[in-house]
Amino acid sequence: MATSALNSDRKIVTGPAGYVLEDVPHFSDYFPNAPTYPNPLQDNAAYSVVKQYFVDDDDTVPQKIVVHPDSPRGTHFRRAGPRQRVYFESDDVLACIVTCGGLCPGLNTVIREIVCGLSYMYGVKRILGIDGGYRGFYARNTIHLDLKTVNDIHRSGGTILGTSRGGHDTTKIVDSIQDRGINQVYIIGGDGSQKGAAAIFEEIRRRGLKVAVAGIPKTIDNDIPIIDRSFGFDTAVEEAQRAINAAHVEATSFENGIGLVKLMGRYSGFIAMYATLASRDVDCCLIPESPFFLEGQGGLFEFIDKRLKENGHMVIVIAEGAGQDLLAESEEQSTTLKDASGNKLLQDIGLWISQRIKDHFAKKMTLNLKYIDPTYMIRAVPSNASDNVCCTLLAQSAVHGVMAGYNGFTVGLVNGRHTYIPFYRITERQNQVVITDRMWARLLSSTNQPSFMKHEPNHPVGEAGAMKW
Amino acid sequence: MATSALNSDRKIVTGPAGYVLEDVPHFSDYFPNAPTYPNPLQDNAAYSVVKQYFVDDDDTVPQKIVVHPDSPRGTHFRRAGPRQRVYFESDDVLACIVTCGGLCPGLNTVIREIVCGLSYMYGVKRILGIDGGYRGFYARNTIHLDLKTVNDIHRSGGTILGTSRGGHDTTKIVDSIQDRGINQVYIIGGDGSQKGAAAIFEEIRRRGLKVAVAGIPKTIDNDIPIIDRSFGFDTAVEEAQRAINAAHVEATSFENGIGLVKLMGRYSGFIAMYATLASRDVDCCLIPESPFFLEGQGGLFEFIDKRLKENGHMVIVIAEGAGQDLLAESEEQSTTLKDASGNKLLQDIGLWISQRIKDHFAKKMTLNLKYIDPTYMIRAVPSNASDNVCCTLLAQSAVHGVMAGYNGFTVGLVNGRHTYIPFYRITERQNQVVITDRMWARLLSSTNQPSFMKHEPNHPVGEAGAMKW
Amino acid sequence: MATSALNSDRKIVTGPAGYVLEDVPHFSDYFPNAPTYPNPLQDNAAYSVVKQYFVDDDDTVPQKIVVHPDSPRGTHFRRAGPRQRVYFESDDVLACIVTCGGLCPGLNTVIREIVCGLSYMYGVKRILGIDGGYRGFYARNTIHLDLKTVNDIHRSGGTILGTSRGGHDTTKIVDSIQDRGINQVYIIGGDGSQKGAAAIFEEIRRRGLKVAVAGIPKTIDNDIPIIDRSFGFDTAVEEAQRAINAAHVEATSFENGIGLVKLMGRYSGFIAMYATLASRDVDCCLIPESPFFLEGQGGLFEFIDKRLKENGHMVIVIAEGAGQDLLAESEEQSTTLKDASGNKLLQDIGLWISQRIKDHFAKKMTLNLKYIDPTYMIRAVPSNASDNVCCTLLAQSAVHGVMAGYNGFTVGLVNGRHTYIPFYRITERQNQVVITDRMWARLLSSTNQPSFMKHEPNHPVGEAGAMKW
Amino acid sequence: MATSALNSDRKIVTGPAGYVLEDVPHFSDYFPNAPTYPNPLQDNAAYSVVKQYFVDDDDTVPQKIVVHPDSPRGTHFRRAGPRQRVYFESDDVLACIVTCGGLCPGLNTVIREIVCGLSYMYGVKRILGIDGGYRGFYARNTIHLDLKTVNDIHRSGGTILGTSRGGHDTTKIVDSIQDRGINQVYIIGGDGSQKGAAAIFEEIRRRGLKVAVAGIPKTIDNDIPIIDRSFGFDTAVEEAQRAINAAHVEATSFENGIGLVKLMGRYSGFIAMYATLASRDVDCCLIPESPFFLEGQGGLFEFIDKRLKENGHMVIVIAEGAGQDLLAESEEQSTTLKDASGNKLLQDIGLWISQRIKDHFAKKMTLNLKYIDPTYMIRAVPSNASDNVCCTLLAQSAVHGVMAGYNGFTVGLVNGRHTYIPFYRITERQNQVVITDRMWARLLSSTNQPSFMKHEPNHPVGEAGAMKW
Repeated sequence: MATSALNSDRKIVTGPAGYVLEDVPHFSDYFPNAPTYPNPLQDNAAYSVVKQYFVDDDDTVPQKIVVHPDSPRGTHFRRAGPRQRVYFESDDVLACIVTCGGLCPGLNTVIREIVCGLSYMYGVKRILGIDGGYRGFYARNTIHLDLKTVNDIHRSGGTILGTSRGGHDTTKIVDSIQDRGINQVYIIGGDGSQKGAAAIFEEIRRRGLKVAVAGIPKTIDNDIPIIDRSFGFDTAVEEAQRAINAAHVEATSFENGIGLVKLMGRYSGFIAMYATLASRDVDCCLIPESPFFLEGQGGLFEFIDKRLKENGHMVIVIAEGAGQDLLAESEEQSTTLKDASGNKLLQDIGLWISQRIKDHFAKKMTLNLKYIDPTYMIRAVPSNASDNVCCTLLAQSAVHGVMAGYNGFTVGLVNGRHTYIPFYRITERQNQVVITDRMWARLLSSTNQPSFMKHEPNHPVGEAGAMKW
Repeated sequence: MATSALNSDRKIVTGPAGYVLEDVPHFSDYFPNAPTYPNPLQDNAAYSVVKQYFVDDDDTVPQKIVVHPDSPRGTHFRRAGPRQRVYFESDDVLACIVTCGGLCPGLNTVIREIVCGLSYMYGVKRILGIDGGYRGFYARNTIHLDLKTVNDIHRSGGTILGTSRGGHDTTKIVDSIQDRGINQVYIIGGDGSQKGAAAIFEEIRRRGLKVAVAGIPKTIDNDIPIIDRSFGFDTAVEEAQRAINAAHVEATSFENGIGLVKLMGRYSGFIAMYATLASRDVDCCLIPESPFFLEGQGGLFEFIDKRLKENGHMVIVIAEGAGQDLLAESEEQSTTLKDASGNKLLQDIGLWISQRIKDHFAKKMTLNLKYIDPTYMIRAVPSNASDNVCCTLLAQSAVHGVMAGYNGFTVGLVNGRHTYIPFYRITERQNQVVITDRMWARLLSSTNQPSFMKHEPNHPVGEAGAMKW
Repeated sequence: MATSALNSDRKIVTGPAGYVLEDVPHFSDYFPNAPTYPNPLQDNAAYSVVKQYFVDDDDTVPQKIVVHPDSPRGTHFRRAGPRQRVYFESDDVLACIVTCGGLCPGLNTVIREIVCGLSYMYGVKRILGIDGGYRGFYARNTIHLDLKTVNDIHRSGGTILGTSRGGHDTTKIVDSIQDRGINQVYIIGGDGSQKGAAAIFEEIRRRGLKVAVAGIPKTIDNDIPIIDRSFGFDTAVEEAQRAINAAHVEATSFENGIGLVKLMGRYSGFIAMYATLASRDVDCCLIPESPFFLEGQGGLFEFIDKRLKENGHMVIVIAEGAGQDLLAESEEQSTTLKDASGNKLLQDIGLWISQRIKDHFAKKMTLNLKYIDPTYMIRAVPSNASDNVCCTLLAQSAVHGVMAGYNGFTVGLVNGRHTYIPFYRITERQNQVVITDRMWARLLSSTNQPSFMKHEPNHPVGEAGAMKW
Repeated sequence: MATSALNSDRKIVTGPAGYVLEDVPHFSDYFPNAPTYPNPLQDNAAYSVVKQYFVDDDDTVPQKIVVHPDSPRGTHFRRAGPRQRVYFESDDVLACIVTCGGLCPGLNTVIREIVCGLSYMYGVKRILGIDGGYRGFYARNTIHLDLKTVNDIHRSGGTILGTSRGGHDTTKIVDSIQDRGINQVYIIGGDGSQKGAAAIFEEIRRRGLKVAVAGIPKTIDNDIPIIDRSFGFDTAVEEAQRAINAAHVEATSFENGIGLVKLMGRYSGFIAMYATLASRDVDCCLIPESPFFLEGQGGLFEFIDKRLKENGHMVIVIAEGAGQDLLAESEEQSTTLKDASGNKLLQDIGLWISQRIKDHFAKKMTLNLKYIDPTYMIRAVPSNASDNVCCTLLAQSAVHGVMAGYNGFTVGLVNGRHTYIPFYRITERQNQVVITDRMWARLLSSTNQPSFMKHEPNHPVGEAGAMKW
């Protein structure tokens, strides 16, 4: 009924009424005669009552959820979960886990639950931690991981494996995988790291190795597309409330008090937007997706002036990637500040805009502006309960997928269901707040801030962002 | 293309490929000539950039999300959100808000955001709070609500309106609505209160009044069907971690230490299940949906004995509604305990099972069992950031729906999108953990507890519960 | 100048102007020729700048701090801290640590800091943990403790050594100490355990062993006399706020809402008193030291009636030891309830008084009484920053004292300074709230509750309690 | 027995055995015939049982607490508390409260409890809040304060009265006091504000007004001498743990990770010292009182190098006032950086030292340095339970003192007892960490950091700082 089109890159299956499945690679694509084994979960007493435990091979999850009676069925992803048969014998598995990039609440929970999932559910005994990110594959010793090692790690922030940026060298990494006899690779990292994972998978396939590569997407900014939300995001929004509360208290305790909070979000303003919606104390939220300007009619200074006159105080939340065009412009003009220290200052939009606001109002009134940068205090906390559940299920989904022979995939929550997504779909673009969509309208309604548009927006309006509720 | 079937109770629309829309009543059904007005949001500067702000009248959201290539399209609900035209003039609106039943984190945020939504988005100025639940309609004075009154209430737990159980008298309530000239009724309450809302709506329709009735479902137990999760649930699971942590510390500090935590969940074990999954410290989770027994092979006592011998300590989480069959049996046998005080003791499953465990092991070993009941400490906290966003969007959806002429509906998150659901769909049954489904399997895998099944389960296995991830 | 009087029990030194020093035993009292060594801290680079590091042998701290110009100087205690010379060579030390009795925030910090103090400051390498309280000396294996083992334990509540009540057998314990070659014994426990420590010390002295015994007083109730406050008390008062806040929210959200919180305090109401003072939400605080009655004029029921009529709600805090006379009386009358389960119920003053209040008002009005018992959730948390510092300094003081040859002492904070106190002074009576003193007056002023006195109080009014500020 | 010497500035009473009382002014000094009234507390039912409620006029509290048998009795302060007779009739009182300077946890609790103390204990009905610090006396309207206004303010950080720096104009302020008929002035502020309070008091005395002036010392840095600790300090140390924890997580998750936390403390390193002692995760604590240098043997860079080689990571806590000499020196050399923005950067010791560390190690190794400045997030939180009690008692002591006719005093906790201290004693110098004293030695022992002394310290070693435990 469904027809499949497999090219070297993509595995697309189509069905009736416009149904499309963007599938992920599978061992059987490359090793048609690979032996399979019954899933050990079948003998697990705990599962004896669970009739619906194994996922039906045809189960898929639609990407688009708001529909019309006769709209086409659209793109789907393969549902995650355990399958009747697996492609690894437990004793043959040598798995490794690596964490890459910046910190994010929940890293340790994901590590813990991959170890627990492999051990408890599939009886795997040999699991290695790669030390310090991608470069740890070739520059460091590995760390032995077992149930005891990981028992309490979810109570701490950070990652017990260590992490780093960069260091990706596909050849060296795959050499190391081959040399050590590793046959399952779990890569926890952001979109750069997932691109790295894709490259590792391609090289492994090229070399004809029977090694599975699975990604668990990690981005505190929630800037990975397709998926509903990334782990750690909920914790980050929660922790951001502390900073906003402090800004609110400072602002209301001083005459013309302004509390300015910089939050994470290099390219996507999700944390700033959700933290603003959750707080109800913010007067203005500035994100990378929504350009703004400072001076003149309809600009930020005018709005600050207005809000101070009305209320005597205000709170501004700014994502770290907001207003980078203004900052770049400013840097060009002020070549005298191109010393090492000065540069640092100017590249921080929070410090820069604080100074600009102070300078602008210096002649008019005494401002009491307090700038708060809680970034490290947010990303270093352990994950909250909600993210702990999220991390656990992501880890279990990854393990089930790898054991079932899927490969070269990222696990992700799509419309509330766990799915396997091909790497290219989550790395080809970034998830961004769509400022012509309803969530941003809700925010504007909540803050009553102006649109900061000089003229009609020509901002690209793509596929609607995640969490559009 | 789609055909509609409207009977007195239900409004069902069908379409191609098995598409079904379970729609909600609308003013136009009863008042075909009701005047409409342009939505005031059209003139709101904040919305000038938001192209997709108004919901397309055909937008619907499917209930079933895991599909096969050729499965029927299934049941859908109407998407929530603002419409191009509204059925109320702002100055004519007299809205009222009532909170019913037990406390739940987020009540004050919902109240606040209904007030803010009506005021900011639709320019409504007259909003009343009903004091102390349903009976407040006829037994109490109303409370004036405006932006200033509600400004800080989301920082506190509980409800500023007061609440109560029962007190529903349809005639008196509708009399009061009619007498006061109220034309928008927002009812925040659990499934009993939503049944009450349905009755009020029917009586209002019978009397031919142009009054809108909208429900915002409130259940800390998450036992309302169809919807993804209810507000306050996330906060409750988070707070429950404190109690489980304390139980873990107590258990590990004493020889044969047992920490027993009772959590909310009269008919549904969602809080217990999610708190267990989030904590990773629980050895056994007992919920109403999964029967268990105490003595003999495969029973709870045997499992306790085993776990204490292995680890020296254990943590048990029990939902308040679990094991009620055992408790009822026990009460029949012990007629001598039917005094006022004694009864209270026995009706608390936590106290009862604590005593049974102590009695059973009294001859064998010294147990150190600590029983913790954090119920009131959980439900009285203010909502966390995630629930604050959830409450805000529910309140806005309810306001948009009422202004757009929808009536007799409950707002709810279905597969991540806000929808309007007919009352009967959320009151006709309760949401329960489906113990033959995957989430419960994940829990069993996490605790390694036995299934406590003496024989094959004949537990009814219905529609899968919400949050099936 | 000062004259000393040493009897077998007490070591009293007197000086001019009514100066009295209640001194503690010292190795030199029993082993006049015991060799001494220079304190290793003298060679510690960190101390090179600290001129006042070593305590002057004459330093003492007065017990009574409010004085008149010509009042006698009164009782003093020896100041704690490092001395120029020590009585142990580092390599000869075999220290052990035991925790006894109920949990209290900070136990793990005290354990950690004894280990760190012995290791870092005195180069001691052999330290044992006794497993599970006093009975662990003879019934269990010991636990090896070093810097690595204890590095992170202060982040967790409870005690990594385990604890138990009772199990004290002086002969067996001293046999075990002798057999194992232990020469430093650190006992962390409440007043019962400190009595045990005194017995161990006496037996050791009787046998002529050169073994030091030091106590670190542990009582979450703050019921140990002389000392300013016990570790963990501050954390307990902080955590109690959660329960009181929940009681306040529950009470204010329901008609005739009463929130009743039971707090720790078997014989002393300090936690209840301080938690009430800190919260500002409590209408009535009931403690063991202040008798009360229920019925009739000036009784509790009358006050509840009055407060509900005035405010519509109230919060009551009750210490677990309050009203035990009423409860005992009630039990005598109701012999029919003497079954196992029923007894439990009646012995909990919180459950008992909840039932009595409900019964009393049953005919008059609908009460909404919520009873909260946060005991285990309070005592299982890790210590807060303030208690962490407190625990660290107590541990260091104990180590300094033992190394300097002091023996048979408890360390304690007296008027803000660390001192060595003879065992008998802290075990001969309990610290209690003095209800004729100013702190209780401040509480009465804060709650405006009645004195619940039928007639003139004949309650014994002793030495004023600690923390009289 | 005691002889008194009153000069215009100081009121010194001497007694036997070297007893000295540094007393505070009193109405009776200037208005010998001022009428007095019985203290209304005598008729307060709550106090009927409190025998020791009124303070004995001879009660004093010694400043020095560690004594020798024959040491002189030393300096004492007058004990705070209610007196038998008062100098104001309740209906005649018009009190005002002003908050000055930076934020500190507990400001709202102090305001609340002055209002509650005046109202409940003394029946005062007319209380004004001065808006926005000293300048509010003459530049703003006053805020009406009563029990209802202040009921919930202690749950929020900041100050509901608003605050500001500077703005002190003695003549204008006393004019305003005189014009408004204010006769009780409560000034909550740091040492600058207390100097202002002293000036106001002198001017009031000069004008012969019967107006009482009382100070409540506010300093989050704990840099006010004589007193044990200032309110808010405990909360600040607690909150600082979050930042240190984040620094620890960041440091341990990256290769050569350094977490650098700047804490409050312009001239005194108490917060840094106590936060370090409480945390147990800090490798190096830098405070204003202990000079250090960067390069060469025994310098900071050498220590960082050593610690990174040993452990791979480290945490540094630096007080904002530390290393200002280095920074000043650096600024002189780099005149090119004297632009507005650049200055800002250099004046922040945290940013400056971060850059210096990065520059130094740039050629040697890849550092991962994360700089955290939690200042505003710390000072804006509401006070914890311990500080709430502290604030309550300070406020009550101030009210009792003013009603009893004392004047020109600051309330303060001295060795655990509340006292009245003459203004000059708390403004004539600052409280500082005495680095030759034991507390600093304890810190050095805990971090094992070097003394950073190039040669013998010639740092002035004065009176030992508060909180010497």
